[in-house]
Order: sequence, then structure tokens, then C-alpha cells
Amino acid sequence: MLPIILDIATLKALYADGNLTPLDVVEAVIERRAAWPDKAVFITPVSDDALRAAARALMAAHPQPNCLPLWGIPFAAKDNIDVAGLLTTAACPAFAYSPTADATVVARLRAAGAIVIGKTNLDQFATGLNGTRSPYGAPRSVFDPAYVSGGSSSGSAVTVGAGFASFSLGTDTAGSGRVPAAFNNLVGIKPTPGLLSTTGVVPACRSLDCVTIFTATVGDGVAVRKVAEGFDATDVYSRRATWANLPVSQLRLGVLQGDEREFFGNAEVEKLYDGAIDAARALGATIVPFNYTPFREAAALLYDGPWVAERLAAVEGFLASNADDFDPTVRTIIEGAKGRTAVEAFNGQYKLAALRRLTEAEWAKADVLLLPTSPTTYTVEEMLADPIRKNSHFGRYTNFVNLLDCAAIAVPAGFDSHDHLPGGVTVVAGAFTDDALAPLADALHRALARGMGRDKTALLPEASKVPPAPDALVPIVVVGAHLTGMPLNHELTGPGGRLVKACRTAADYKLFALPGTVPPKPGLLREPGFVGTGLAVEVWALPAAAFGSFVSKIPAPLGIGKVTLDDGSVVSGFLCEAHALTGAEDISHHGGWRAYLASRA
Amino acid sequence: MLPIILDIATLKALYADGNLTPLDVVEAVIERRAAWPDKAVFITPVSDDALRAAARALMAAHPQPNCLPLWGIPFAAKDNIDVAGLLTTAACPAFAYSPTADATVVARLRAAGAIVIGKTNLDQFATGLNGTRSPYGAPRSVFDPAYVSGGSSSGSAVTVGAGFASFSLGTDTAGSGRVPAAFNNLVGIKPTPGLLSTTGVVPACRSLDCVTIFTATVGDGVAVRKVAEGFDATDVYSRRATWANLPVSQLRLGVLQGDEREFFGNAEVEKLYDGAIDAARALGATIVPFNYTPFREAAALLYDGPWVAERLAAVEGFLASNADDFDPTVRTIIEGAKGRTAVEAFNGQYKLAALRRLTEAEWAKADVLLLPTSPTTYTVEEMLADPIRKNSHFGRYTNFVNLLDCAAIAVPAGFDSHDHLPGGVTVVAGAFTDDALAPLADALHRALARGMGRDKTALLPEASKVPPAPDALVPIVVVGAHLTGMPLNHELTGPGGRLVKACRTAADYKLFALPGTVPPKPGLLREPGFVGTGLAVEVWALPAAAFGSFVSKIPAPLGIGKVTLDDGSVVSGFLCEAHALTGAEDISHHGGWRAYLASRA
Repeated sequence: MLPIILDIATLKALYADGNLTPLDVVEAVIERRAAWPDKAVFITPVSDDALRAAARALMAAHPQPNCLPLWGIPFAAKDNIDVAGLLTTAACPAFAYSPTADATVVARLRAAGAIVIGKTNLDQFATGLNGTRSPYGAPRSVFDPAYVSGGSSSGSAVTVGAGFASFSLGTDTAGSGRVPAAFNNLVGIKPTPGLLSTTGVVPACRSLDCVTIFTATVGDGVAVRKVAEGFDATDVYSRRATWANLPVSQLRLGVLQGDEREFFGNAEVEKLYDGAIDAARALGATIVPFNYTPFREAAALLYDGPWVAERLAAVEGFLASNADDFDPTVRTIIEGAKGRTAVEAFNGQYKLAALRRLTEAEWAKADVLLLPTSPTTYTVEEMLADPIRKNSHFGRYTNFVNLLDCAAIAVPAGFDSHDHLPGGVTVVAGAFTDDALAPLADALHRALARGMGRDKTALLPEASKVPPAPDALVPIVVVGAHLTGMPLNHELTGPGGRLVKACRTAADYKLFALPGTVPPKPGLLREPGFVGTGLAVEVWALPAAAFGSFVSKIPAPLGIGKVTLDDGSVVSGFLCEAHALTGAEDISHHGGWRAYLASRA
Repeated sequence: MLPIILDIATLKALYADGNLTPLDVVEAVIERRAAWPDKAVFITPVSDDALRAAARALMAAHPQPNCLPLWGIPFAAKDNIDVAGLLTTAACPAFAYSPTADATVVARLRAAGAIVIGKTNLDQFATGLNGTRSPYGAPRSVFDPAYVSGGSSSGSAVTVGAGFASFSLGTDTAGSGRVPAAFNNLVGIKPTPGLLSTTGVVPACRSLDCVTIFTATVGDGVAVRKVAEGFDATDVYSRRATWANLPVSQLRLGVLQGDEREFFGNAEVEKLYDGAIDAARALGATIVPFNYTPFREAAALLYDGPWVAERLAAVEGFLASNADDFDPTVRTIIEGAKGRTAVEAFNGQYKLAALRRLTEAEWAKADVLLLPTSPTTYTVEEMLADPIRKNSHFGRYTNFVNLLDCAAIAVPAGFDSHDHLPGGVTVVAGAFTDDALAPLADALHRALARGMGRDKTALLPEASKVPPAPDALVPIVVVGAHLTGMPLNHELTGPGGRLVKACRTAADYKLFALPGTVPPKPGLLREPGFVGTGLAVEVWALPAAAFGSFVSKIPAPLGIGKVTLDDGSVVSGFLCEAHALTGAEDISHHGGWRAYLASRA
């Protein structure tokens, strides 16, 4: 009865129909994780009995199906995120502690009815993108146990990709919440830094760390994020969201060019990337070239620059006493920060500021970047043979994102030509575009999807489809002095307004020449019953932030109301108070302000 | 003919009248600076002949008086700011170099007609707040040569306070553009970090440094800032201004409480501070207590934390080769950063982030902070006897401002009870409140001023008065369902709207009950000639940022136009399209929507 992949939308539908209970789901989870051959996925699974007890407790306290947003939804947490009552190890047994409280995000998810099924394996101290750097073993790709699962959120990705969790929590400093999504045919939601609290999370780079979400669909990921996100005063890097919209109808999507297209010899992933570009174009996006160089150089700062000192800051005391308890590769990386000076730390920030300045020119070309998530993948054996260099390949297109304060969503982009391993692409945009990015990511995923997780035949549920986001540009109907070429048109172009179209109003509007106005202006009046030609107007799109100030400057007798156009749509636009039109010349028969002015010229 | 203090407004008026030329002004500058007894003010004065040549060149190229915004206005630049053709020493002769280009701000000021009169003395490498740390001598207070001028922009302050420059440029990392203003009866404009370019400025703490402006009045300072400010792509810390307004009619001004009121025994400055609080109250501000502790702790990070490593980063190579060329105190401070680790640098940032979080609670209480600029002053002898500790006293209320990304304006607050030395106060608010702070700072200055600079009898020119700034809250007249207690009132209170007043419209408005609206709504219509009672309405104040989204949600036939109130004022407010009122019940005789609803209850 249960699908292979436990996507949230499907579980909720089954719960709603009364065909399934949370207890049924945890029984399936118990069975599936026991049957899964890869034993490196969990560090601390919740016991079978505790899982059953959690399901029963939920059903007793909240008997009504779906009465909570994540009622009976099973999830796993990366083992650097505190869950009260379970050890937190960060994949270092000697570091383990027993937290008395849930991490803020875990507490919010549990309060919403989600059920924790266990703590998952990771690259130790979240230092890695491949999943092999753990004394608890290396989780494997759900498609081929010879291949890495990706990391550092390795076990979390596998729990969802294998079908024993509906979602899982990862963390992402350099790409740890995106690379494993690509390798396991999953969505990875990498929120804007500060949107999800990191209170109760073992730091990697404290100023950059993000909690992330693995799901089967973008819609599921957004639903989980909406529960988990929100300001948390106990996290000094938590931020209050100031949501940013993106253009919808005329989106410019930046893609890699020339030498910056680097796949380390993996033509299969390159082909998937090109397919994603084609799909985005077919969805209506304008594909534009941009220069990845400054983003790549910023990315390089994360391990080659002073930020690795944040990793040392996070474990300095523990490293001093327990150096031998570290994974050798992780230890090498973190010890590399010893001897780095404060001067180097500030010089790194200056360098980043300079690179951020260079990226601004690229953001002026593209609203959103479309990038390969990881340019290639490797077997566990290949990775272990060259662990630092091969790991760095995975981060080529992910490392810059948090340093440059971006939001990102990684989505599956299909499978290689042997139908063997999946590849992924990521959409990246500025801070707090999380909601605005989601419809695009979802549409792209739906265009490219081949199943969900390990189930290559599953169809993405319609119920998890992400509705359109508000356009960053607000339409406004202008009638007179704001028309193209007219004296007040600069009030639209100045703040970045763009002409959408010239069209006509519905038939029942009249136009009057307002006497004594400077510059001359008309007044538009609706008169139901009147049947005219409709009046020539223009629809402009104004950045939403500029709309209020535009409206507040309009003098009486004009104002902004709703205007019905000849296609029946209703758009904000200029109207006139009726009293001001007494005795004014009715110029409706000219069909518009421009024609009226021409008749007088 | 020329006043003692060369304030810009007065010079411009004299130029406009044709009674004065730039050549007259530079002759006066030449005479005055030669006569001034303190020879430590300039490091490199522009020669007499070069000054005359500059004035002649300006008059030849731009003969029309005041045809440029700073036509013929003399100014001085701190000697850590590049002026092409003059050495930049940063008060360290061995460090000197000859810049080939003006600093960005200098170039903008010269292009606007301002004339450079020289490069001024400073605490070496801008490290100090007192003015004694220079091999070029210690500039003195214009009121008593026994006393320090304040620093690090010591010579710049004296040039304006003594009356041989109309304005001067300083830099300010820890307070260097404010403390010397307080000690010389001047205004110190400390812009939001990133608003004025630092390209061509020798760094102190590169991530925090600000170029500042000393003037006799706030209006002069704003005029200069408007010329100098603006995005500069060559400065990696330059920012595009996103101006923030402040509440005007209901401003909450935070003042020091209890143990946080620290004047190091200087009861005179304390009395001046109390006088400023009284003056602010008389100007209509609401005085509110706030807790300075987290601000003070952030301030302490600047010298006791890792940021001193930025000073080392700025001169590391030079220090390695030329340690003996440093001022001993400056060297001690900068060498204190040696051995500081990158881990310490990041830990300092975590500490600052935590303190910033704590200050948020204080900003929720107060829109603007009113602080003493410097809590006390010292003689040169006292300073030299205890140079680090006594210097730190000066920074008690200034050090936090750039770390917490604030704008500040320091204004004179009068003289001590012996009419001997001046004291100052500073208004501080969040990023990009520079324009919004200016009218308040100017009003406070005008209430407290005793002369300008060294001229204790000068009156502040009316012409430099700063006009009111836009209120952060936009008024909107509501008529029906948005009134207090009505079903849509939450659309005002939700985004932080506040009730301003209940009042009536002008007499020529009619009110109709709109049929079939949910919730029930009235329609307001102006009908010139109709004489009614005026209709009961409410004026609400809505954050400007929320106004646009509020307007765009209003359904037809309602809209936002301009409503005339019974006091004749014209305010944005709800209007109704006339056609929708045909057949609607005229309820004007009830005098308002609330009375109409009551009549039906």
C-alpha cells in the first residue's frame, strides 16, 4: 500500500483517506531500514519500540489525521543536530554528548507532528562532501553501493532516497545539503543563511552553516521549511526574513560559459546540465550567459582561505585533547587552520568583499543562476584514494553559495545514458528568494524528473506542486502623462519599471481632459452601461518596493484603483474622482490620451 | 567682511551677492592659517601661490558664482586621504607616498568646486582619539592650547574650528570624526559605513573605516556629504544607499541610565548632556531609557578584540621593515595584534554577533540614541602621561557605532560653566538613517549652540537649516472597515500601523453604504458644493514599506486618492468610484460609518 518513496504529499493523502495511520508508517520504516543492506546510514536509530511508542503517542494526543502540518511524517536528523534523548556524535564517538533539548528546528518539526526515526551518519564534523569520512562507515549511493552517497549529510540523504524517511535534516556549509541530493535523486533545500536556526547544531563554520532539508519533491521541501524556519533569538546568526521576489514572466537564468563549464571528464553530467538548460528555456526562462569566475574564486576561499579557522574554532579544545580521535582527513583539514593569523582572517574577508563586488555585475545579468549541483561523482574507492582533491571537485558549484549569502534549491536532473546514476542541477539566487525560487525549481524538477529517490518509476504527486510566487514586478495601468514618451514616464522608468504591453480598457470607461493640470492629464472614469471603444492604455510593471512611493505622490483628483482591461483582467491603475470631471471635456471618442493630444497638435 | 567661521551657507550668500570671490576667500585662508599660533595643524599645506592659482582657475573655468554646489568653498583633508600632487603621510614620514589620483571623495568635492587648502595632522595611521600621536606635533583645542584637539582627525577639526576651512574631511573608525568635533564646537558627520567611498584612504580597520565631514552646521555637513557620497565600485566596502526614514512626529530618543552614565568625573560634560536631553524633549522627542551595556561591550571589541588585527593588516609589511618609524604608542597598539589567530578573529565576530542581537532589544525601545560624544577631555600633558587609558575614555560612546553599522551626527552642546571648553552630543541610528537624522541633529544644535567653532558669538545661519525629513510612517485616511475595531483594522495594525488621530473630512464629502460588500464597506465621494458635517474618519500612520502592498490589495470600486480633512490638510485615503454609488444609500447624515452601523444595531 505504501509507495517506495514516502513523499509527504502522498502520506498526507493516505492519512486523509483513513487508509493509513502513523503506526502503519513507522512499522514500514522499521521493516525497510532493517532490510536495507547499507548499515552505515544511521549512527543512532530510534529503536523499533520507541518509534512505535512515538506513533501511538501522537495518535493519542492528536487523533485527527493531518491536524498538525507534519502529522505522522517520519524524518531523520543528521547527527550534528541535537535531538533530546539521542546522542549527538558529529561522527566522532569521543566527541559525543547527550543533549537535553532538541535543536530549535527539531523542536519545531516535532511540535508539528513529525516523528524522528534516528540520527544519521555524516562526514565527521560536517567536513566533507562525499560521505566517506566517518568511523561509522561510508553510506553509499542508493543506486550503486560502489559509489559515494555524497556528504557531509550522507545518511540523511540515503534515508529519504531509500524510502524510510519522508524528509531529513542536513546541514550545509560548502554544499553538504545539495551534493548528496544530486547523488540520490532528491531535492535539497538550502535556505538563505539565518533563515533556519542553528541553535542545537554542532558548528562547522558558524558564520555560514545552514540547516537543510532533503525531500522527494520541492513542494515537500517547502512545506518542511515553512515549519522549521523562523527567527530564533538564541541563534546569533538567525535573521528575520525579508522575502525577495523574483521576476516571473521575464526571468533571466544564468548558465555556465566556456572554460567555466567544468565536469572533470564526466560527459554524462554535462549532458544532464544541458538538458536542464533546455527544459528551463522551454518553461519560458530567458537563458543568459554569465561569468562564473568570481563565484569560483569566492568558493575557493572556503577551504583555501581563512574560513577553515571557523572549523578549528568549533573544536579547538577537543582537538587539543583528542587529536587521535579524528578522522585522519578531517584532522588534516582542520589542523590546517593552526597558525593562521587574525590578519589572514581579515585579509580573507577583504578578498571576499572584492569578489562579492565582482559578482554584482553578474547578478545584473541574471536573476537566478542554474548550475550543475556536483559536476561529477566517484566510487568510494576512488574517493579514498585521493580524498581531498576529489572531494573538492564536488564543491565546485556549491562552495560559494553561503559565502555570498544566497538561497539554493538542488533538484534531480535525470539519469546518465546508462540509466545508472542520477545527476542534479541547482538554482541559486540572492538572500531570501527561498519562496521565489521554489516554483522555478519545482517546474524544472517536474520537467526533468525520472522517479523520486531510488524509485525511478514514481510520478511526482500533483499535490506537491508549488504554486506560482508573486512577481517582483507589480503591474499598473497608466492612461495619460505616464505613457511611454510622456512627461511623467520617468516616474516609472526611474525606479526600474518596464513596459509590459499596450492595450485597451474595457468598453465602459470614459476619458476626460482634466482642465488646468500641469503637465496636462486625463481622468479615467468607469460608467457601467456606457459602450465605447475601450481606451488605449499601457500596462507597466513596477518593482513592488517602488509602488507605494509612486502611489503616495499622485495628486488629487487622481488616485490608484482597479481598472478592468478589454481581456477582462483587473489591474491596479489610474482613476479620477468624478467631481473633477464636471465640465471637463469628454475625449472618449479619441480612443485614448495619445490620440487626443495628436488631434490638437 | 568675512566671518570668523567660514560656514558654507554664509560663503554662498556672499558669493551670490557678488561681494566676495574665491580669490578673496583663499587670501583670507592664507592670512588666517599663517597667523594661527598652533603650527601642528597641517602636515602639508597647499602653498599660498597654489591656492591663489586654484581660485583663479576655478573662476576662469566656472565664472558664475555658485554654479557648482561647492563653488569656491575651501576645505582640508586629513593626511590619510589622497589628494593628487600632495604627499600622503598618515602622520608617518617614512610611510609617505605621492598619490597620482585623488581619493574618490576628494575628486567628487573638487569637481563640485571645492578648493583643497592642505593635508592635516592626525594620530598616526588614524590610531587614536586624542591628536597627540604624531611626529608632526599635537594640534590643540581651538579654545585652549593646553588641551588636546581630539583625534585622530585632529588637524581637520582645527582647520574648521579656527576658521580657515569651511569644511574638512576626517576618517572615523572608532570615533575620530566625532570626538574632535566635540572638542572644537563643530558638527561631525559620521556617515553610514560604505556611504562614502574609502578608495584612496589609508586603511585603519578596512572593514569599518568611514570618511567623515567636519562643518560648522549640520546643514553644511549634509550639503558636503551629498556631494561626496555615493556608490564607488572601486571600494569593496562601498554600498548602494537604501535610505531609511525615522519616525518624525513620535520619535523615541534613548538616553543613558544609571551606571552606564559615565563621565570619568567630568560633571561639566554631564550637565551638557542633561541639557541636550532637555532640549530634545522640548523639541518634541519622547525621552526613553535604554540599556547601553551591550553597546559598550561591542565598543570594547574594537581595541580589546581581534579588530586591531585589521590595523596590523593595513601596515604589516611596513611595520616589519620600519618598526622604529612608528609613534611608540601606535606601535604598541598595532603590535598587540601580532600573534592573534584566525580563530580569535572568528570568535570576535561571534561575540559581536551575539552583542548585536542584544542591541536589537534596545533599538526596539528607541528609534535614535542620544549620547555624549566624548564623556570628558584632557590636557595634552594628562594624555601623554597615560596615553592608552585616557584615550579609551574618549571612545566610550563612539567605538561601537561602526561595528554595529550605524550612522551618527555629533553636534555641539554648549560650553562648560566657566565658558571655557565645549562639549558635544551625538545622535546615533541604524544604517542609512543619515538623511533622517539630520533634521533632528540640526534642531538640537540650534537649541544648544553657542557660536560656531572658535567664534562663540556667531549665530547659526538660517540658510543652513535642515528641512524636515519624510516620516517613516505614511498617513492614510480610513473611513470604514479599516477603522479601529472594524473587521479590516488588522491590515493596518499587522504591518505596524499606528493610529494618529480621529477627525473629520472637509464638509463637501458624502458617504454611501456600498451594497453587497463583505465585510460591509462605505464609499466616500467628494461633491464640491455640498455642505455637510464632514465625516468621521481616522488617520493612521503606516510604515512606508507596507503602504504599497496595502494599496495593491484594495478591491474595486475602492481606491486610494487624496482626502481633504476639516483642517484643510490633504492626506492619502480611501475614495470610491462614483459609478458604484448609483443607487447606494446616502448615509452622510449619520456623520460617519461607525454612527451608521450603530444606528442599525
